[in-house]
Amino acid sequence: MSNLRVLIIGGVACGPKTASRLKRLCPDADITMIERDRLISYGACGLPYYVEGEFLNINALTHTQVGLPRTAEFFEKTKGFKVLARTEAIRINRSRKTVTVKALDTGVESDLPYDKLVIAAGGSAFRPPIPGIDLKNVWFMTHPEHARTLVEEIAAQGLKNAVMVGAGFIGMEMAEALMYKDMNVTMVEMFDHVLPGVMDRDLAAYVQLHLEDNDVDLALGERVVGLEGDGDGKVTAVKTDQRSISADCVVVAVGTRPNDELAREAGLFCDRGILINNNCQTSDPDIYAGGDCVLNRFINKTVAPPMYVPLGSTANKHGRTIANHIAGQQTPFPGINGTGVVKVFDYTVGRTGLTEAMAKKLGIAYESIVWGGPDRPHYMKNARYFLIKMLASKRDRKVLGVQVAGAGDGAKRLDVAAGTLYYGGTVEDLADIDLAYAPPFGPPIDPIAVCAHVLSNKMDGIARSISVYDAKERMDQGDVLLLDVREPDENKMLKMAYDKVVHIPLGSLRERLNELPRDKDIITFCKISLRGYEAQRILQAAGFDRVWFMEGGHEAWPFELDYLGM
Amino acid sequence: MSNLRVLIIGGVACGPKTASRLKRLCPDADITMIERDRLISYGACGLPYYVEGEFLNINALTHTQVGLPRTAEFFEKTKGFKVLARTEAIRINRSRKTVTVKALDTGVESDLPYDKLVIAAGGSAFRPPIPGIDLKNVWFMTHPEHARTLVEEIAAQGLKNAVMVGAGFIGMEMAEALMYKDMNVTMVEMFDHVLPGVMDRDLAAYVQLHLEDNDVDLALGERVVGLEGDGDGKVTAVKTDQRSISADCVVVAVGTRPNDELAREAGLFCDRGILINNNCQTSDPDIYAGGDCVLNRFINKTVAPPMYVPLGSTANKHGRTIANHIAGQQTPFPGINGTGVVKVFDYTVGRTGLTEAMAKKLGIAYESIVWGGPDRPHYMKNARYFLIKMLASKRDRKVLGVQVAGAGDGAKRLDVAAGTLYYGGTVEDLADIDLAYAPPFGPPIDPIAVCAHVLSNKMDGIARSISVYDAKERMDQGDVLLLDVREPDENKMLKMAYDKVVHIPLGSLRERLNELPRDKDIITFCKISLRGYEAQRILQAAGFDRVWFMEGGHEAWPFELDYLGM
Repeated sequence: MSNLRVLIIGGVACGPKTASRLKRLCPDADITMIERDRLISYGACGLPYYVEGEFLNINALTHTQVGLPRTAEFFEKTKGFKVLARTEAIRINRSRKTVTVKALDTGVESDLPYDKLVIAAGGSAFRPPIPGIDLKNVWFMTHPEHARTLVEEIAAQGLKNAVMVGAGFIGMEMAEALMYKDMNVTMVEMFDHVLPGVMDRDLAAYVQLHLEDNDVDLALGERVVGLEGDGDGKVTAVKTDQRSISADCVVVAVGTRPNDELAREAGLFCDRGILINNNCQTSDPDIYAGGDCVLNRFINKTVAPPMYVPLGSTANKHGRTIANHIAGQQTPFPGINGTGVVKVFDYTVGRTGLTEAMAKKLGIAYESIVWGGPDRPHYMKNARYFLIKMLASKRDRKVLGVQVAGAGDGAKRLDVAAGTLYYGGTVEDLADIDLAYAPPFGPPIDPIAVCAHVLSNKMDGIARSISVYDAKERMDQGDVLLLDVREPDENKMLKMAYDKVVHIPLGSLRERLNELPRDKDIITFCKISLRGYEAQRILQAAGFDRVWFMEGGHEAWPFELDYLGM
Repeated sequence: MSNLRVLIIGGVACGPKTASRLKRLCPDADITMIERDRLISYGACGLPYYVEGEFLNINALTHTQVGLPRTAEFFEKTKGFKVLARTEAIRINRSRKTVTVKALDTGVESDLPYDKLVIAAGGSAFRPPIPGIDLKNVWFMTHPEHARTLVEEIAAQGLKNAVMVGAGFIGMEMAEALMYKDMNVTMVEMFDHVLPGVMDRDLAAYVQLHLEDNDVDLALGERVVGLEGDGDGKVTAVKTDQRSISADCVVVAVGTRPNDELAREAGLFCDRGILINNNCQTSDPDIYAGGDCVLNRFINKTVAPPMYVPLGSTANKHGRTIANHIAGQQTPFPGINGTGVVKVFDYTVGRTGLTEAMAKKLGIAYESIVWGGPDRPHYMKNARYFLIKMLASKRDRKVLGVQVAGAGDGAKRLDVAAGTLYYGGTVEDLADIDLAYAPPFGPPIDPIAVCAHVLSNKMDGIARSISVYDAKERMDQGDVLLLDVREPDENKMLKMAYDKVVHIPLGSLRERLNELPRDKDIITFCKISLRGYEAQRILQAAGFDRVWFMEGGHEAWPFELDYLGM
């Protein structure tokens, strides 16, 4: 009897993970991994950090921690499976169970047989079909070669004016990287806010302030229609539907597309990506797929269609599930929550689960809240302000999604929330987790628990709040009263630019209720709306029915402010 | 009909939380909070950080974020309930539903009636009954006054030689604080390792190395039998059962005891603390208790008796549950997992759930693993090494406990693990959570997931490992072979001080198997045992039956090493 023949197409993340794990589980399996590129298993997520100068040798992304290059030979020697680099899969012949491959250096084609096939072909950066996209000094950022040449050319040509096309995760990372390279950076985004599809408009606006504070020029709601070049074929400008932005360097990051052509041609079920079951099998049970070429389902039956979220973390999980299943172990891949995080200068920005925009689109009855405050006790030097936005289902109070943005440690809270989404917990569950408390790490009631409490209060009708966006709208109409319950010193330092603000510090509110009209809508606020919430409760208890507190307080305010005395 | 009368004994954490929440839920309730002290609701957890110099004004602990003192008047004005400071509860008269209280400034006693009583009397620092405990320059660290006088006296008297009695959480924080005050610090601990009861011996040993690296002298396994003083009544030395340690400053932190005397005298069920149900009711349903005077149960039916874990985070949760229940809402307090975290110089150290020592004592069939590695991709400058220890139940694979220690971001992983304990997840669940990935925050497969994978592999018999302690024991007996699978350069830099080490880099192992004996026990290792694990698998696949990899690699080794060429 011959050994099980496993063929793996793709050698970046899911492929090597599948092969390594499977070889450990089934030492006798005959495993071959093919890869179009010369490089195997590189850390593409590190590219912006190489550009930024976080590390100086790009080999860090292609070599192991102890400096060994992850070549075909490396994998064969240490992991025990065969690697064919510079080899492209041309065709899957399902009836014969072979894959036709082409050696790219010689052009020779041959057929490789398989008992089990794994498609881990990855994704490709989307190349917008616009004039000039092939000009010199236009970069995509998916391969170490891109990062290496970008850094080289910035120095060699003295490039100064960069345009970043796309304001997604990679756009954020590259904008930061190029700023650290002392370039002028303009970020062009077709949608009206950064991180479209990833973050809601309100938290995105908060991130935009931070980008602007770091001198990134934002061109939102502008569609790139073409790139202009000079006689040398070098890019000179980015043309949008509104203007021309001069540029000697353009980085394009407008999304990734699944490399699902082979699968489609072989008749496997695909949508916008290959469809897989929770064993990562395609519609052909002998063919598995994982990584950036597949669609993922949401964990825990959140009412959401399969999503395309290409991520190295997910690719590795696919690899493990595939290897286990081939080896006879059922360890179903439960799906994803669309969790993502990005560092934007001093901010941590990310989300897990559904955004408000997604929940609306899916017709889910939800309640949401924005909480803002410090991530640690106020007396600790490393305390930093940040925002948490949380959505829960009105039907069963399950947490639907969490977003974070700000200088505070949002990554930790995001991961805790991701756990709650995984287990299908409610807002009350999230608040009840016995999180680790000590002043260097957080306050006694963790921000994620406070946010959950406020959302729970809101669902119970105890807390009544209004988002900064809705508050702004009401103020623009001029028919609402703002109640500032901060201390006199705070009010002197910073005021809201609005002509109907009453200032009564919280401590005096109970005895000065008669100064407030009962026939007007009132929005209470303070710095972070802890006191704003108290004020809303005091007024409500005193019979004021039309009172809301402003979510996140003036710290969450993404519009103009009058700064006085500063 | 008169309003509901609620009397609350204690004004630090659970008390004010109960009162504030209840007043928001039931504006008509007649709420009185009594507190023995003059200070209300202070942040005792911040005391070591005041001593350390993290902030310079101790008011930060007794005032709100905007600088208002949290006085009786503050609470009455902003929160709307009555506060009697400097008032002590003398006796609970359950039949008459009154509490006899004494105004400490006048000595006048009176009876306060209640419909619902809340005991939030807190805990007290244990004062060991040893000679000299009342000497001058001996501090406990539970009240802002303690921290203030300690800082003052260090400066005024020029105190230089501190002895920290007790190596628990507060001991760690105070040792760090006193080192930052340029003092010589000796830490005396009765048990044979630091953080007894909190951390297992192996991770504690790793913390001890870090304490020693930071010049803290450790006196472990020594019992303090008395303090010696001079003619002025000032402490001069700490006498242990083994020696005398000279000291001009002593800080004692050997645990907290619940203030449950009132409850005991009133005939309420107590063990080592007041017993409560999950509504935080005592054995008298009109009397609630919460905070540092009660015992807590473990979440999720982990087989563990009620535990005494006094923490501000838990006290606040009790307060919320009590207020809700009095207001007619059922929001049961689910219990705790004994989660705790502490900063020890550059290390984050903590645990959630059961330690191995606890699991052994409880007779639970468990499997455990220690994982060690960087918390971020190796190419990121802020990547830091740390250890994770994980325990799971052999019966149902549920995670029983997680400990972290090291410079890496263990707090995040601890909170993720706390979530899994809360929801009763298995090791596989913990690995499947869709955690947030980007290089500034972590590697594509998060350390907590890797650790869970290795534990899962171990439970399946795929991974076979040995702890550094057990490895050391085998090496002391001299009957085991060590297989170093690192690269030649690494081997040159640092060797294990043992005479039976074979060095074969992982990449050559498959072709050099004949150099290894098949009749000997072999322990494989590398820096963090990623390669050590690969080597174990390669050898096992090649028919070597007696192979284990060393958990955490040489980075986790808490014993002597020969450093060469450094």
